[in-house]
Order: sequence, then C-alpha cells, then structure tokens
Amino acid sequence: MKIAQIAPLYEAVPPKLYGGTERVVAWLTDALVDAGHEVTLFASAEAQTRADLVSVRDQAIRLDPADLKSDLAAHMSMLHDVRQRMDEFDVLHFHVDMIQFPFFADCASHTLTTLHGRLDLKDLPGAYRRWHQFPLASISNDQRRPLRNANWIGTVHHGLPATLLPFNANPRGDYLAFLGRISPEKRVDRAIAIARRVGMPLKIAAKIDGQDKAYYEREIAPLLEGASDVSFVGEIGDAQKPEFLGNAAALLFPIDWPEPFGIVMIEAMACGTPVVAWRCGSVPEVIDEGQTGRIVDNEDDAVAATREVMRYDRAAVRAVFERRFTSEVMAERYVRLYSQLVRGRSQDLGLRMA
Amino acid sequence: MKIAQIAPLYEAVPPKLYGGTERVVAWLTDALVDAGHEVTLFASAEAQTRADLVSVRDQAIRLDPADLKSDLAAHMSMLHDVRQRMDEFDVLHFHVDMIQFPFFADCASHTLTTLHGRLDLKDLPGAYRRWHQFPLASISNDQRRPLRNANWIGTVHHGLPATLLPFNANPRGDYLAFLGRISPEKRVDRAIAIARRVGMPLKIAAKIDGQDKAYYEREIAPLLEGASDVSFVGEIGDAQKPEFLGNAAALLFPIDWPEPFGIVMIEAMACGTPVVAWRCGSVPEVIDEGQTGRIVDNEDDAVAATREVMRYDRAAVRAVFERRFTSEVMAERYVRLYSQLVRGRSQDLGLRMA
Repeated sequence: MKIAQIAPLYEAVPPKLYGGTERVVAWLTDALVDAGHEVTLFASAEAQTRADLVSVRDQAIRLDPADLKSDLAAHMSMLHDVRQRMDEFDVLHFHVDMIQFPFFADCASHTLTTLHGRLDLKDLPGAYRRWHQFPLASISNDQRRPLRNANWIGTVHHGLPATLLPFNANPRGDYLAFLGRISPEKRVDRAIAIARRVGMPLKIAAKIDGQDKAYYEREIAPLLEGASDVSFVGEIGDAQKPEFLGNAAALLFPIDWPEPFGIVMIEAMACGTPVVAWRCGSVPEVIDEGQTGRIVDNEDDAVAATREVMRYDRAAVRAVFERRFTSEVMAERYVRLYSQLVRGRSQDLGLRMA
Repeated sequence: MKIAQIAPLYEAVPPKLYGGTERVVAWLTDALVDAGHEVTLFASAEAQTRADLVSVRDQAIRLDPADLKSDLAAHMSMLHDVRQRMDEFDVLHFHVDMIQFPFFADCASHTLTTLHGRLDLKDLPGAYRRWHQFPLASISNDQRRPLRNANWIGTVHHGLPATLLPFNANPRGDYLAFLGRISPEKRVDRAIAIARRVGMPLKIAAKIDGQDKAYYEREIAPLLEGASDVSFVGEIGDAQKPEFLGNAAALLFPIDWPEPFGIVMIEAMACGTPVVAWRCGSVPEVIDEGQTGRIVDNEDDAVAATREVMRYDRAAVRAVFERRFTSEVMAERYVRLYSQLVRGRSQDLGLRMA
C-alpha cells in the first residue's frame, strides 16, 4: 500500500529525548516499511526514518533556536504540500490533530486521523461534529470518552520496536522506577510515598518543563531534601532506558489524569518490568491485571501491589509486550484500518457505477 | 455592500481592557454600519456591535474560565460556518491571520485579510507564498518589510471613533503619560529616564502579563521604589483614557520593536495630546513630525522633543487625528479595497464570458 504519514513538526521524528507523538510516528513508519509498504513521511528535516522523507521544515520547531516562528504557518505549509501530492497515496495518515480538516474536506475518506491528545477540551465537540466525515483512530478506548459520537473507526494502542528495549531476565531489582515529566498530574509525590512505605529506594528519571518548575520547587524538592532513598537522575533518552527500566523491580505510574496512552508502561513491559498504575485513562486497557502489573485506586493498594508485582514472572511480562505492544502489532492494526478505508471507497465507487 | 467581518475569538469585541485586534474590528464594523453597509460580525457572544452578530463561541477564549479549551478548534469551527454562508456576502474580511486560507483557497478573491501582527517570523514567507492568491492589507507600510513579496493590495492605518476620546483643550498638563504593556520592547524604562531628565512626573498606565512579571520585578520595580515622580496606575480601559491621556502634557512612546501600529499614539492625538516616539515600526507613518509629535532616535533627542511638543497647538493635533485616524476614515479606505476586489471579480467574469 502507498501510505503517507504526516507527523507534527514540534519535535524530531523520533524525538531526541521526551516527546510522545513524534516517537510513535517514527516507530509506526518504520514498521510499515518493514511490512513491505511504500511509505512517505512528512516531517521536519532531522527525521531518522526508513521511509521516504519529505522534509517541510529545516528543523523541528522546539529544537529551532529562532526566536520568532509560527507553529501554525509551519503545519499549514506542510499540509498544503501534502494536499498537492495526495494522488500519490492510497491513504494519508495524519498525526496533527485537526488542522488538516479544511484541506481534505472533499476527500476525507482517503485519510485517517489518529488523535494523540486528551479530548476533554471545550471547543472540540463542535469541531469534530462539523468535520464528522473524517475517520478517526483513538489510542485507547478511554480516550474517546469526551467525544463518544465522533467518527471513530478503531482503537490502536501504541507499540514500540521489539528490539528497542531488551528483556532483562536478571535485573538488579533493588529500586523502584518513576519515568515521565514532573507535573501535578503525573504525581511523582505519590511514587515517593509508595516507595517509602514499601521500604525500597526510588529512582526518578524526569523532565521538568519550564511551566512545572514552580510546582517542582514547591511540592517535590522538599520531599527530596536530604533523602538518601530517592534519587533524581534527570531527563533520559532511549539509550538509557534499558538500564533504568530494565533493572527496576517495578515501575510506578501513579497518574492523576486521563492520559490517553502511557508509553512508559509498555517500555517497562518490554524490559520485563511489571507496572503498578492508577486506574485512570488508558491504564486498565494496557495492564493485564496480575500478569504485567496491578491497577490500583489508592496508596494502600499501591503499596501492597508493589510488593506483589515484584514476584511476577518477568518473562511473562515480556511475552505480553510482544503479543500486544510491538510496533509490528501496531502497524498491522493500522493496515487493517487503511484497508477498510480503501475497501469502503471502492464500494462507494461500485455503487456510483452500478 | 454586504460585508462579513471575521474577528479573532481571544478577547471580547471590543475588549474590556487591553487588546488590539478585537478593538479595531469593533470600531471598523460599527463605522461600516454607520456608512450604510450591511455588516455581519462573526465573533464571540459578548460582542457589542451595531452589525448583525453571529456568535460562534459563548465567550471570548481569554475571558473563559474553562481550564481546557482549544483556540484552534474554536477558530476552525467559526471559519467552517463562515464558509457555509459565504454566498450571502460581497466580501469577507478576515482578521485572524492565516487560518482561513485552506477554507477559501478556491475563492480568495472574495476575501480580504488584514494582518495585525508582526511578520518577521520564520515560517511566514513559506505560507504566504503558498497562498499568494489571498489579497492582503497591512496596517502600516513598515509592517510589510519582512514579507515584501506577499500579495499586498493596500495599507489601512487604524482609526478610532471620533467621539471615543474627546478633545481636551485645557489639560492639567502637569505630567507625562506612558500607556501600554510592561515588557522589554515597550521600554517603559526609557520613559522613566526621559521624564526625570525633563523634570516632570510620569504616570504609567500599563498591563503586566504573566510572562512579563519577572521582567517587571527585575528591571522596572527598582526604578519606581520610593520615587514620588513616577506613579503606576495599573491597567486602564477606554473609560479612563480621556482623563489619563487628555490631561497629559505629552505621551511617551519609546518602543524598541517594529510595532506594526501603535494605537495609543492615535488615542493621545484624539485628546489633542502630542506624542514623542522612537523611530521604529509604524511610528514615522503615524506621527506628523512637528505637528502631532516628534520622532526621535535616542534619549537626548527625546528629552528635547518632549520639551518642544508640550508647546504644540493641541487643536492642530486633534485636527490631524480627525483627518487621518478616525474609524470613519479607516472604513472608507477599507470600502475602497472591497470595491476594488468586487470590480476585479466582475472583470474576471467579463473576460471569461467574452
């Protein structure tokens, strides 16, 4: 199949460090190439990909040191160029929220849009109602909750390359891990409390965004002061994850917001590391309760669950990852959706010709 | 003429306090109605207008206490609805930068787009090149500098209602005024230095945005500490401007950025108050040197100019305002551009039919 992948221009594809959407687009694109498809990736110029790259900006917007730039103009220019070339593709797969709608309103059935963000924003229902012809994919079923009536045609959970984070059968296992951003909704404070009650050290690998600095200073830094049982290792990239996640006894994922998909859960599972996660957003769809981790509702549960998951069979955790969350599996599911769209179109044509 | 005005959804039309674009759209819309045109205003619901209002959001985005909202979805929904109704209008006048381009790419000659912001952003040339068919209006000639080759069809300086800020023939005249935001490029520090060298008190009416708080604390607050010659009166609305601007001996406008149009200059002129302004952005187009104010290049010049402009004939300042900068004059100029577009279209039609 001839497939165009249209990535956001904010981060590199894949990102150098933190960054969700561009990472998934990179993995999906390569997996589609590996499966024998002809794939063209529209992205900023530093993209690393096995597909044909059409670079529509010299560098990702957030990496660009220029003071004055326009996110909107950059994305609109990219979409203008995608539109010019649309006849070259069987399907156009967008990862840029909704900005493509006015460009492709007359040929929405040639497109698939994966929504990567939270959807409980005030202005979204009106917009998705107006462009109801666009087929949408969710990254978890829970993500759809605020937009039940949108034109969903499937859910495809994220997947990552099977070889990216190797299975670790014999971890050091002498600490618990937290990986993510420091922000109120990620609740690193809960992770610290749980680890202390379990009586194990906690290692925190996290990015602190500018907007979260005040929160960190006020709420988190005092918890770390003089503490030898909690260490803060800063932001880490893919290269450090096998060591950081693979050697952990368990990953703590105590989120307090409806996160549409928590990639770090499947990163841990790839290493064989079980996960203790709050019942929130995509968590119940990602964790196989009692096998890859535990889903909890409060701190008491979390403490007990953490002690429990450390005894899990790590090979079984990895096996679930391989069955459910590789980029190969993700690509297969998307190809099924693409095929459905292409078949739908030829049926329409059949009707019109009959 | 049947005219649609499409306003941004960020602030009320007109704004309650600070806010440039929505203010000008409000003034233009009412002036077009007064000139006998049938005008429809697309804006958020709290708009105050003499035109027919189509409200596409229950309240302006920045006034909306909702935590989670989408600027992009709100504007896209509005433009979707404008597109549905476009046959009702002779011309559609957009004030929302470029987001309307993909919606109206096949009928750009029915549209006029006024660009209200600075244009020296990295991604803009590529976008305006791709949508070159859209006729553009600038708010000063200087604004065009970074996009010389865009499809400019005219410059229309801003204007404000002749009765909004009454002429003050007998001001108290015992202070200099600064009105604007507190931010590095507005250079209130220069205003303070000039006033001190002139030996007159300075009154500062200004908004401090969240992002500028640190700048204020670091650079400006120390200049005000214990000073009896500088007073900070906070943010003011239109109701307080006749008193604030009308009683000033002069307005200081010592900007340090290419401001496309400085509305406060014409607000002062409406009151008969002369202006001392830095040679930057629209300033040389707005100030009639020696009549409504002085254009300066450095602090020494500014001190001498301030002493000089206080002796100007305030009635002459007001007369220039009435000739050049009322909303009536602005509306007349825009109507000329609308007519040009409508004529151009009928000529095209003539050619096609010949």
